[in-house]
Amino acid sequence: MERINIGANTSLPMPVTLIGSIVEGKPNFMTAAWVTRINATPPYLAVGLNKARYTSLGIREKRTFSVNLPGTDIVRETDYCGFISGKNADKSKIFELFYGELKTAPMIQKCPLCIECRLVDVYEMPTNNVFIGEIAAAYTEEKYLTNSELDIKKMNLMILTMPDNHYWAIGEQVGDAWSIGKKLIKEKSD
Amino acid sequence: MERINIGANTSLPMPVTLIGSIVEGKPNFMTAAWVTRINATPPYLAVGLNKARYTSLGIREKRTFSVNLPGTDIVRETDYCGFISGKNADKSKIFELFYGELKTAPMIQKCPLCIECRLVDVYEMPTNNVFIGEIAAAYTEEKYLTNSELDIKKMNLMILTMPDNHYWAIGEQVGDAWSIGKKLIKEKSD
Repeated sequence: MERINIGANTSLPMPVTLIGSIVEGKPNFMTAAWVTRINATPPYLAVGLNKARYTSLGIREKRTFSVNLPGTDIVRETDYCGFISGKNADKSKIFELFYGELKTAPMIQKCPLCIECRLVDVYEMPTNNVFIGEIAAAYTEEKYLTNSELDIKKMNLMILTMPDNHYWAIGEQVGDAWSIGKKLIKEKSD
Repeated sequence: MERINIGANTSLPMPVTLIGSIVEGKPNFMTAAWVTRINATPPYLAVGLNKARYTSLGIREKRTFSVNLPGTDIVRETDYCGFISGKNADKSKIFELFYGELKTAPMIQKCPLCIECRLVDVYEMPTNNVFIGEIAAAYTEEKYLTNSELDIKKMNLMILTMPDNHYWAIGEQVGDAWSIGKKLIKEKSD
């Protein structure tokens, strides 16, 4: 099998999120996919944003932000928040909002999962800032739960891939983590 | 709509990857999902690993690592590499390997996408280390391309969700990023 070098600017499948903050007194949302958990205890998230982003101002000022996971039903609004800057347009009225215990991290009613974070640190990278947030709380609704647990099938979250720039639904279940690999141990010992 | 606080230890849909390194002279692979791009130029990736991980030794010593994206066909091997430590088992023979320009970042032949990274920095978090790698190159095969571009539909990559701990396939295409949201601008101006 011949391997083809496709260059360095490649990407992974990424979660589609809307980062909420209050910037210059107004709730604002921007689409972001460079988001991951980064520490287990306490629970930290990292969000990589281009340094020019309007959202950065709000996160630094209020020292809080939210990570909202939209469903496929609001793909157009989600995409819009990625290329229209809060510098040029008021994005505070696109969604119905709510607030949690941090009070200054606006969250989106329509998102199946909304996470509010306290800013822990900012790492300066060459072109991006990485905001490290400690998760204060995460919110969902009864309709996304099965047996009191989040049910991914009910949430219709989205994945982004680049550089092809497509949004994808989450598909079929492939297996259980920390479980399906145990069959290999069994086979080896058979 | 009543929002339910489900606590702080929540997660996002995450890419399933196998982190490759040479530890104590042997190629080793561990499953990781706390992985994201973190800087645009140069292209950096961040990988959050528990501090006790055997893989950390190898990355620090060789200052290189790989991020391999497995397809659903090797879900069992992928899962196995997540709960069996290289301290206790030789994982160098599970996969057929190849090397790229960095020479010390082992990559997996069977993975549709393999990314090799040069270590840039390590951020120490309370329970995890965050390895920042600059992408040196990414490798695929002809069969995963359409019109010379990576074709996600041909790759069968996986997503992990926690705390439900399921692996998922990538599903249907929902829309084009930096595009589908433009319909909102049109509607507003109509």
